[in-house]
Amino acid sequence: MKIVLIGGQGTIGKKVAAALSPRHELIIAGRNSGDIQVDITVAASIENMFRQLKTVDACICTAGTGYYGDFQTMQQHHMMGGIEGKLMGQVNLVLIGKQYLTEGGSFTLTSGIAAEHPAKNGASVAMINGAVNSFVLAAAQELKKDQRINAVSPGLVEDSWERYGALFPGYNLVPMQKLVNAYLLSVEGAVDGKIIKVYS
Amino acid sequence: MKIVLIGGQGTIGKKVAAALSPRHELIIAGRNSGDIQVDITVAASIENMFRQLKTVDACICTAGTGYYGDFQTMQQHHMMGGIEGKLMGQVNLVLIGKQYLTEGGSFTLTSGIAAEHPAKNGASVAMINGAVNSFVLAAAQELKKDQRINAVSPGLVEDSWERYGALFPGYNLVPMQKLVNAYLLSVEGAVDGKIIKVYS
Ligand SMILES: NC(=O)c1ccc[n+]([C@@H]2O[C@H](COP(=O)([O-])OP(=O)(O)OC[C@H]3O[C@@H](n4cnc5c(N)ncnc54)[C@H](OP(=O)(O)O)[C@@H]3O)[C@@H](O)[C@H]2O)c1
Ligand SMILES: NC(=O)c1ccc[n+]([C@@H]2O[C@H](COP(=O)([O-])OP(=O)(O)OC[C@H]3O[C@@H](n4cnc5c(N)ncnc54)[C@H](OP(=O)(O)O)[C@@H]3O)[C@@H](O)[C@H]2O)c1
Repeated sequence: MKIVLIGGQGTIGKKVAAALSPRHELIIAGRNSGDIQVDITVAASIENMFRQLKTVDACICTAGTGYYGDFQTMQQHHMMGGIEGKLMGQVNLVLIGKQYLTEGGSFTLTSGIAAEHPAKNGASVAMINGAVNSFVLAAAQELKKDQRINAVSPGLVEDSWERYGALFPGYNLVPMQKLVNAYLLSVEGAVDGKIIKVYS
Repeated sequence: MKIVLIGGQGTIGKKVAAALSPRHELIIAGRNSGDIQVDITVAASIENMFRQLKTVDACICTAGTGYYGDFQTMQQHHMMGGIEGKLMGQVNLVLIGKQYLTEGGSFTLTSGIAAEHPAKNGASVAMINGAVNSFVLAAAQELKKDQRINAVSPGLVEDSWERYGALFPGYNLVPMQKLVNAYLLSVEGAVDGKIIKVYS
């Protein structure tokens, strides 16, 4: 398969890339890194990326972040980065990318455990992950040409322990191999319209 | 209780108002209607409303709409109205309103069945409802002063059959009294951090 992986040089993306690259034509996309540049907060940049790729058999997104911060002082502007990036960025990958996705192709987006089990300070991220999950349920019904779409919803992953562990007291660490499997299930399997939860 | 009901002249809001007004001090807020004017898409307008109200014991929101439309031609701009209104409007009611809510007070937001069971053409609404639900789970953990928050998630309601019925083939109609009960459960009961689903 010809696969584009947006965020393929991030913590999760790197491990997904390592699993896919031996048996697929893998193109890594990132803002400042990878084989092709894209800023998913800008629809024209997404359009431009797909135009260069011409067609892909799978589009995976592990790009995007959300705001963690004190709820008492949280304001709308803290939440907009996540809405423009992780939420609308991923939505636009689908709305725009479906024209470039081959028959039977798949989208795999990334949400996260906060949708169901938000950590302290995680209201903004919870909101965005819940939005991504519900969008995927709807989009799965609408895509044509046997195209599929799933969301992988990770818990706190092993490789992020140093960077984020302190934010998630009491959260089990997700082994990277289990999380990578969720992306493989979506891309190489037949599941459609699923929130693939990998919480521990 | 002193209760502000935003959207209290809408289809759902009217029935919620009728149930609450005999035994509470009810203030109806709306963009163009009601006792007090507010545009929930504008944070300053929300702040202004609460400043006039000084304190409330409960804040209910039945205001907001989402975009229904063809997925094949859906674009980001179709989705922004719902994000600014139903999503960030309700989020801002909480982020701003918590300072004006009394000890033990409650927020009741409105999401909808599309979060879990999106109808055809409902990807934008699904996304917004999913976001509202997950935000409520997070906010419930964070609110101080014994304040509570819940989301009521309605299915297609009886009183909207004429207006929206054609958009929801196969969806059961929700009796208004059952839906009103969900708002009463949130406002007058003790539940907290719940998505109160009223799907039939
Ligand atoms: N790590 C966890 O434990 C965990 C848990 C739950 C959910 N998640 C979710 O999983 C996803 C990946 O997490 P991660 O920890 O792997 O993130 P990460 O290490 O920060 O990597 C993010 C990647 O996304 C790219 N990126 C960021 N903004 C972009 C934009 N606007 N356009 C294009 N590319 C962009 C970055 O590339 P550049 O550096 O080139 O910009 C980077 O390669 C996120 O959605 C995160 O919320 C992670
Ligand atoms: N009806 C259903 O079957 C159904 C099913 C599932 C979910 N829902 C959800 O339930 C909620 C209420 O639905 P509904 O059918 O009762 O809606 P509606 O009849 O259209 O009433 C909406 C009310 O919200 C007010 N409003 C709209 N935008 C506003 C803004 N920016 N600021 C302040 N007030 C605003 C309107 O007041 P003005 O006219 O003064 O602007 C109106 O009173 C919505 O979130 C809807 O998505 C409804």
